[in-house]
Amino acid sequence: MGPGPVNADPRVLRAMSAPLIGQYDPAMTGYMNEVMALYRGVFCTSNEATLLVDGTSRAGIEAAIVSLVEPGEKVLVPVFGRFGHLLKEIAERAGGEVVVIEKEWGQVFTLAELDAALAAHRPRLLALVQGDTSTTMNQPLEGIAALCNKHGTLFYTDATASLGGNEFLADAWGVDAATAGLQKCLGGPSGSAPITLSEKAVEVIGARRHVEAGIDDGSAPRGIRIASNYLDLAMILDYWGPKRLNHHTEATSMLYAARECARLLVGEGIPEAVARHRLHGTAMTAGLQGLGLQLFGDQAHRMNNVVAVHIPEGVNGEAVRSALLNDYSIEIGTSFGPLHGVVWRIGVMGYNARKDAVLLTLAALEQVLRAAGAPVTAGGGVGAALEVYEAAG
Amino acid sequence: MGPGPVNADPRVLRAMSAPLIGQYDPAMTGYMNEVMALYRGVFCTSNEATLLVDGTSRAGIEAAIVSLVEPGEKVLVPVFGRFGHLLKEIAERAGGEVVVIEKEWGQVFTLAELDAALAAHRPRLLALVQGDTSTTMNQPLEGIAALCNKHGTLFYTDATASLGGNEFLADAWGVDAATAGLQKCLGGPSGSAPITLSEKAVEVIGARRHVEAGIDDGSAPRGIRIASNYLDLAMILDYWGPKRLNHHTEATSMLYAARECARLLVGEGIPEAVARHRLHGTAMTAGLQGLGLQLFGDQAHRMNNVVAVHIPEGVNGEAVRSALLNDYSIEIGTSFGPLHGVVWRIGVMGYNARKDAVLLTLAALEQVLRAAGAPVTAGGGVGAALEVYEAAG
Repeated sequence: MGPGPVNADPRVLRAMSAPLIGQYDPAMTGYMNEVMALYRGVFCTSNEATLLVDGTSRAGIEAAIVSLVEPGEKVLVPVFGRFGHLLKEIAERAGGEVVVIEKEWGQVFTLAELDAALAAHRPRLLALVQGDTSTTMNQPLEGIAALCNKHGTLFYTDATASLGGNEFLADAWGVDAATAGLQKCLGGPSGSAPITLSEKAVEVIGARRHVEAGIDDGSAPRGIRIASNYLDLAMILDYWGPKRLNHHTEATSMLYAARECARLLVGEGIPEAVARHRLHGTAMTAGLQGLGLQLFGDQAHRMNNVVAVHIPEGVNGEAVRSALLNDYSIEIGTSFGPLHGVVWRIGVMGYNARKDAVLLTLAALEQVLRAAGAPVTAGGGVGAALEVYEAAG
Repeated sequence: MGPGPVNADPRVLRAMSAPLIGQYDPAMTGYMNEVMALYRGVFCTSNEATLLVDGTSRAGIEAAIVSLVEPGEKVLVPVFGRFGHLLKEIAERAGGEVVVIEKEWGQVFTLAELDAALAAHRPRLLALVQGDTSTTMNQPLEGIAALCNKHGTLFYTDATASLGGNEFLADAWGVDAATAGLQKCLGGPSGSAPITLSEKAVEVIGARRHVEAGIDDGSAPRGIRIASNYLDLAMILDYWGPKRLNHHTEATSMLYAARECARLLVGEGIPEAVARHRLHGTAMTAGLQGLGLQLFGDQAHRMNNVVAVHIPEGVNGEAVRSALLNDYSIEIGTSFGPLHGVVWRIGVMGYNARKDAVLLTLAALEQVLRAAGAPVTAGGGVGAALEVYEAAG
């Protein structure tokens, strides 16, 4: 019950045990096409260029940024938590001229703030985290594309922690590139990064094409060559596309995992999955308040799937975490930066967005806090959560 | 029975179904340390810096090169097949000044040829493939480190296709960096790249350290910052090392797979595993000759785990491959570049380095070739293979 990675859905783990097949087996091509179609559903997009990067969610982020940004181009990174700093660093390493605007942890940016920064800097790329687990905040994305379009800015968002558990509408919101991972609301293991790219993004990446089929042909039509081979989305697109040009050897078991994650989610229905995360996240939040604990951050912009709660005064936060892990096999999260030692972060996502997981976590937390001598409202956690469930019917 | 990826050992697939645990769960730290120890055994090294890169074998290659080579530094790449071209391309993208020497496909370099090129160019890095499946050749590596040491050259080798099935002695041969993958002789799925680094390599990478813990601190002590965050081995070393600094979220299921691959191999014994690949590779080779087919390449330097055989005149190579796949569920490999349409590549590696797999493949190939009207020696394939097995006792 941490902020992710979380334990995977057993059906996803089982899918990984399927026998491997060859990379150019017609059945494998079928699986890859199926994965592309499924993730169009997950990202709510009709983007043809919807596929997997073979690596953790960080590989997806770097693939998007290094493929979209040429050295010397300006990148605007609004930072409202730890993962904004990561986007900044990756964009810098890609040679981007990075401009940062910062927001106090626990808040999100307004459209006006983003508009002002876009107008002031007219960047090539806006790189913005949607859900930042470090603060639990969920940055609203609607309306941003229109601001980007005024300046010819591409709009990239890192939806690693939010996708599947919070609304994400790639097409309706005009997102040019979005990346994710399996280990949060998708209920799978880390190690595969779903990505979707708009036609405009594909065109920008294609303009940087320098090599075909992995062998340098000596011609550089235009643009600066992408500094990575492994994360070169032009080549990865050719691998997943109709040409099926050889690039890396697809991580087949992770593809099976990614496929199963999406099948489960699309089978449930994306709006239904978001509603499930909202319900159980709300129950957890109510339960924590019912115990008498104080929440952290702007609750109007909290992600459905993770909540930060203040560690009560006089309580050793790490001792509580250890007791939960050792006595109940429940992991909750510590925090980074300014929140370290100040809040715990409790996740309700993927396979763990379930009533039993919420109730058990609240009951266990109550017992451990009592044992630590912290003042808690007896039964207040489970009671408040049950009220949320009853109200939802 | 292709040149890889091959079907994984069922025990490895089963290992991937184990429940996930948190990244900082003490049990997870134990697993990571166990993986490091196991791969020291596989690479025959005492290198502390022996770990996994989360991605396919290509990610491991790029991590090694981008972390070791600074822009403008000279890299010598001896090319004797397709994967030499890949090392060249990755080194170029990393900003290296790449010098290539080439060998006809089907041959390997002599020590004298490598010595002459090292003396002429005095590169920062020698990047050399050990086993190149495109030609089936296995480049001897003994004696090269001494040549490198004369010029202060670091010695990197890509052992993706060879490790576990051919002798590899990182310490005895003085290799500074070596990378691999699971999908060849290790009998696992693609998606995790074992890597080992000498103390000298770790020192060179450490000198390029620019950031700690993922957040830019503004100080660049020396060296040019590594252009990738995801493949920055300095940061990955801190993640795997005693500091356990947060970097990517470890791909836990792939770590389970990598652990199981190494456990099986170390349990068998590395010399024993190499001998097994040699035996079954020899049986396959004898069988192909027994059918009356012609082998390709310098057989004295062939990898144990893959053999290239000429497609008989008048036979449609792709039709034979399709018939094997559709009628027998056996995949054999096509070829690249100058060998495309000229040879098939047949692998005998990992879980498939077994007598039954060799015999069935030879029997099936005989049937399909007969059906295609090709002249084959009746029973000659299986017969010759059985003689190899009998001679081995």
